[in-house]
Amino acid sequence: MTTTVGKPVPRIDALDKVTGRAAYVGDLEIPGMVHGLILRSPWPHARVLSIDSTEAERLPGVLGVLTRDHLEGIDAYFGSVVRDRPIVAMDKVRYQGEPVAAVAARDLATAQEALELIRVEYEELPLVSEMEEALVPGSPALHETNLCAEQHYDWGDVEEGFAQSDRVFEDTFTFPMVYHYALEPHTSIGHYTNQGITVWSTAQHPFLVRSDLARMFGFSLHQVRIIVPYLGGGFGSKSYTKMEPLAVALSKVAGRPVRLALSVEEAFKTVRRHAARLTVKTGVKLDGTFVARECLIYLDTGAYADNGPLVAGRAGERIAGPYRWPSLKVSSSAVYTNSTPAGSFRSIGAPQAAWASESQVDIIAHDLGIDPLEIRIKNMVSRGEEVRRGQRPLEGDPATGLRLAAEAVGWDDEAAEESGRAVSSALVTGKGLGCNLSGVGSSPTSTALVRMHVDGTLTVLVGTTELGQGSRSAMAQVASEELTVPMDSVDVISSDTSIVPYDRSTGSSRSTTLMGLAVQDGAIEVKDQLLELAALHFESPVEELSIEEGQVLCRGESIGFGELIQEEFGGVAGELMGRGYVTPRSHGGRLAQSPVFWEVGISAAEVELDVETGAIRIPHYVSVADVGKAINPQQCEGQDEGAAMQGLGHTLFEEMLYEDGQLLNPNLIDYKVPTFAELPDKLETILIENGDGPGPFGSKGLGEGGIVAAGPAVANAIFRATGVRIKELPLTPERVWRALRRARGQD
Amino acid sequence: MTTTVGKPVPRIDALDKVTGRAAYVGDLEIPGMVHGLILRSPWPHARVLSIDSTEAERLPGVLGVLTRDHLEGIDAYFGSVVRDRPIVAMDKVRYQGEPVAAVAARDLATAQEALELIRVEYEELPLVSEMEEALVPGSPALHETNLCAEQHYDWGDVEEGFAQSDRVFEDTFTFPMVYHYALEPHTSIGHYTNQGITVWSTAQHPFLVRSDLARMFGFSLHQVRIIVPYLGGGFGSKSYTKMEPLAVALSKVAGRPVRLALSVEEAFKTVRRHAARLTVKTGVKLDGTFVARECLIYLDTGAYADNGPLVAGRAGERIAGPYRWPSLKVSSSAVYTNSTPAGSFRSIGAPQAAWASESQVDIIAHDLGIDPLEIRIKNMVSRGEEVRRGQRPLEGDPATGLRLAAEAVGWDDEAAEESGRAVSSALVTGKGLGCNLSGVGSSPTSTALVRMHVDGTLTVLVGTTELGQGSRSAMAQVASEELTVPMDSVDVISSDTSIVPYDRSTGSSRSTTLMGLAVQDGAIEVKDQLLELAALHFESPVEELSIEEGQVLCRGESIGFGELIQEEFGGVAGELMGRGYVTPRSHGGRLAQSPVFWEVGISAAEVELDVETGAIRIPHYVSVADVGKAINPQQCEGQDEGAAMQGLGHTLFEEMLYEDGQLLNPNLIDYKVPTFAELPDKLETILIENGDGPGPFGSKGLGEGGIVAAGPAVANAIFRATGVRIKELPLTPERVWRALRRARGQD
Repeated sequence: MTTTVGKPVPRIDALDKVTGRAAYVGDLEIPGMVHGLILRSPWPHARVLSIDSTEAERLPGVLGVLTRDHLEGIDAYFGSVVRDRPIVAMDKVRYQGEPVAAVAARDLATAQEALELIRVEYEELPLVSEMEEALVPGSPALHETNLCAEQHYDWGDVEEGFAQSDRVFEDTFTFPMVYHYALEPHTSIGHYTNQGITVWSTAQHPFLVRSDLARMFGFSLHQVRIIVPYLGGGFGSKSYTKMEPLAVALSKVAGRPVRLALSVEEAFKTVRRHAARLTVKTGVKLDGTFVARECLIYLDTGAYADNGPLVAGRAGERIAGPYRWPSLKVSSSAVYTNSTPAGSFRSIGAPQAAWASESQVDIIAHDLGIDPLEIRIKNMVSRGEEVRRGQRPLEGDPATGLRLAAEAVGWDDEAAEESGRAVSSALVTGKGLGCNLSGVGSSPTSTALVRMHVDGTLTVLVGTTELGQGSRSAMAQVASEELTVPMDSVDVISSDTSIVPYDRSTGSSRSTTLMGLAVQDGAIEVKDQLLELAALHFESPVEELSIEEGQVLCRGESIGFGELIQEEFGGVAGELMGRGYVTPRSHGGRLAQSPVFWEVGISAAEVELDVETGAIRIPHYVSVADVGKAINPQQCEGQDEGAAMQGLGHTLFEEMLYEDGQLLNPNLIDYKVPTFAELPDKLETILIENGDGPGPFGSKGLGEGGIVAAGPAVANAIFRATGVRIKELPLTPERVWRALRRARGQD
Repeated sequence: MTTTVGKPVPRIDALDKVTGRAAYVGDLEIPGMVHGLILRSPWPHARVLSIDSTEAERLPGVLGVLTRDHLEGIDAYFGSVVRDRPIVAMDKVRYQGEPVAAVAARDLATAQEALELIRVEYEELPLVSEMEEALVPGSPALHETNLCAEQHYDWGDVEEGFAQSDRVFEDTFTFPMVYHYALEPHTSIGHYTNQGITVWSTAQHPFLVRSDLARMFGFSLHQVRIIVPYLGGGFGSKSYTKMEPLAVALSKVAGRPVRLALSVEEAFKTVRRHAARLTVKTGVKLDGTFVARECLIYLDTGAYADNGPLVAGRAGERIAGPYRWPSLKVSSSAVYTNSTPAGSFRSIGAPQAAWASESQVDIIAHDLGIDPLEIRIKNMVSRGEEVRRGQRPLEGDPATGLRLAAEAVGWDDEAAEESGRAVSSALVTGKGLGCNLSGVGSSPTSTALVRMHVDGTLTVLVGTTELGQGSRSAMAQVASEELTVPMDSVDVISSDTSIVPYDRSTGSSRSTTLMGLAVQDGAIEVKDQLLELAALHFESPVEELSIEEGQVLCRGESIGFGELIQEEFGGVAGELMGRGYVTPRSHGGRLAQSPVFWEVGISAAEVELDVETGAIRIPHYVSVADVGKAINPQQCEGQDEGAAMQGLGHTLFEEMLYEDGQLLNPNLIDYKVPTFAELPDKLETILIENGDGPGPFGSKGLGEGGIVAAGPAVANAIFRATGVRIKELPLTPERVWRALRRARGQD
């Protein structure tokens, strides 16, 4: 009997946000705070011969200048996998826009003036802009080698598999370099003192930032405090450590709290998604049975590793899709180039992998004359089946999800009518599918604290960063449900490492599942204490008690939660605390096996293409999310729709463009993101709720799946509309138009 | 084997404070914050006929004006015992300086200009300035009656006691109206939204402020957040609710966070200590045995009740002193007058009671020819004896403490040499004693949370307000000791009602005892979890494990706390939480009986008096504090010395002076507080440590006792130097000089 879980209750931060009173990092004023600006490299690759900051330091109003010469006592390097990124450039710069120095001044105008007084001598080095060149032996190297990481992933004998196959397909696909474009650029206020560090920052993983800063600046964990107020979107761009070390190091030099608020252009030069080149070789039987797959993946990780090695690994895993593979062999590499470092971005590695894998599935289906839906279903793993060797068996049912998506766009109709139906002289339409399966949840390490006040209302403390996804509301619903108190009796405090208990990170679709479970556990511990107090009150064994609507019931009598607390503390005083621990060993060890759960990404698109211009319109787009149980269906839809839109962004027009190592379009004019004008006429999310998730009330996370299969769904639809296969994203009108011309032999 | 408890470890906030980076409420900038100023009544007693704020509201830059006409939807009254104090004046004003209206504006200059545009029409009412007049039937009344509260306290039959006495003494003493003079005046930033309230405030009891604001503004507890950053002294002036409702109501009108920072003059018009008039009648045997005491106490509580009724009750209890009374009868009343409301002030009611009680003890001793030390010891309650009927028996040993104090000032020498020794023609010296016993601790309702991070360091969350007393350091020591980790591995976060668990209040010498116990309990719960994890690690029963220096030991092997957490969470992740609950039922119910413990106030003074000028110098002053166990001896001494100095303030020169209802001296020029120049030449604190306190490691609180007996100790010394008994405080040179003249028949 759920009362709030499963209901589209309003977000608890809705009013703060629509009234504009929600304070983001950039809105904060810290006592004594001064303003920081960064001097960035104009060169994509150069040796830094000298830096002279004396004039800048002398400028009145300047509190400090940070260069490589001011890093004494600081471990200057960070990185979530490889610690290769310096706070400011050391011996050389590796991409255009890399921080070389920073100034803290009483105001931004003074800081700007000071920046202009810093003299830097560079010696230009050869540019490494393409992965292909980067890997040629003897080519110029950004680091010791340009191969940042190489991940291998295989089982079975692919050579034998190919030998046993009736047909073998090999295709190469490319995926563009894209930017997250969260509305709020990276902003950090660093405050260094010799007793510790406080940082207000746009951080998705505040506890990991805490660890990094503790290590870099020589503090223990309790001396480092990361506070994340409202956050205007992350999508991975604010995962791990980004600008925080620079803000802190600058504060150390300035002796004051320093605010570092990046512009959009600077945020473009902070992190992006990996561009990719994927070669997929697949062996199949004539009946469509998949036999073997071999892939070679190169991911452009830019100037520094960031999360590149992990992204390479995930892309390698995710290239398998939701299919059975008797044999599989993947090599996935992250390659350094002189460009903005690439890191995590919503469903790391998966859109790249799905772009290649799912495009090729349609190539195969077409070649074999099998319906694209049927070839997928035929090879799809089903509930309880091992998805990846040694990993958790599948808890969901992606086949049903894919059928639902296909049905929603009228797949059978199309199949019946044949594809490539011309709407008018210039317009053709087609339908396409895409799907993927990603092991998500990162590690099962979340903790929560649930506090019940003496009036029976709750404050829940969680380390999940509320970055717009609605986590505070979802956590409130879980606590509300478990303790039978109304939603408006619950507040959720999030992401301040000194006051909320540990959480690994906010990402990998993990929060509702893992933090939700921790909140539920905390609520249960509160409930247990209430029952203990009620047992004293009623002089009754706990077994005879139950709770309902904020009361403990016993043999027809009842007492409110608040009254029980008052009885214990003697007056209108006191509170109860409940702890939630989610660890590999907790919950009977059922979270120990990786991944925490499998997230589907299922898309079906109906596309209308103007063959004269190459312009694409999407009359109908369907995304399916398997959420186990929707804690808040409206928020689930919002998350999935957002992911779908972001997927359509990189599918249709998003691409960071470099020329001679210079980023050409770091702004909203030249870098196009989806607006309402580009929305599908009908954008639909279908939620699957089988109660089979490991989270509270059978839930599992979502938010990433929706982005994954947009590219292949649209490209597959274009193929079915035109017979033309495009293997590069984005599908800009020009690229589509050129492809059509080429196909018609006009080029 | 203690490692940090009992050591004078440095305060954990020392560096923040000496470097000036500690941020107090007044240092904060809240996004969107505007500035508030208060229009105060020029009249001590008047009907408010009309208020016209239209012109002020129209002034550009004004965001809102608050008057009685803008209180819709707000319960406008508050008060810790009687809810008689309005946010702003309603029908009438009851003291000069009472808030009548308030303005929120973009800056203080605009706010000031707006204040001057508010037109208020008053009709003056008859002034009630003296308690005697106030209680005359038919006299003008501030409220329905001028008798705010009347407390009775008695046992035995005093009439029979007096009949059985050899001698009966009756004396009347007066105690002045004094101000706390914390260095930081009251400052509050109120932020009202329709979803809740956030207040940054100088609050000793943030959880009680939370309750008041929730009630007044119609919210639940989880919607009200009170944050107390560094606080510059309280001494009771910031206990309960003071300016917070006004700041919040003004924010509601202005639609913005509003900062309300009082001037010192305004703080003088916010709260003060009760002036008192005490008539004490005591019956004794010729051998000095106390037989019966009857007292009539009047306390001037000013315009509103504040904590007056409780102060009256405590003064009534404390007039008994640390003595056995076969019969006792006390009537103690709080009386309204047209002056600043009086509330809690360090050891409520006790300095007033001790002034009367202990002065009279010396009168009796002198009359009976008994040594003042001996008559006290003779009648003093001893360990295990019931101090007040029905209350907790005495856990301490005040007689030993008093002997130590007397010995320290060379009491025996004086007894031998006789008192009143002339030093020179004009200078005479004498020694005096004073002592008292106060039941303290308020109620045993404190909770705490101890978080152990994955590197084994700790963050302790407590609701104790750090107001300069060093509570954060003491709590850190308790946690450090209990968990065998070094002091610099512990941080303490205090006083933010949304993030730290409940505590009743910071006052009544309760924090080290009760919150200290809660912290210890929290640390023990962490320890239990560590042992549980270690039992898994070592595959050993918990009984075979022990902890030492941040490690769990087992049969010669050891593992660090952090490693155990890492093992549980699988990586450098996670944390452990331990809860501490102190309730009447906790700890086997041993805290349930009132008071939590008995705090001694023992003083001995050697005084040098210039008989020509009445000027007093104090060559040697000794205060004794029974702390059970000094968690931090240096901080204990600091607390006790501060209390002694504050006691010498009201003893020697502090007094708020009114004329025609106008406060004459609300500033540091005209209201003298002790400076280094007035310090005793030798100011000494003796700590008694018998390990008999109910707090952690046998500790009990201090900080109030030192203020209590300063007045009688000095006055008794003057008597012994001169034979002149002065029954009014403060002992200004003029008053002493006049008393000497009167005694010599010169007046």
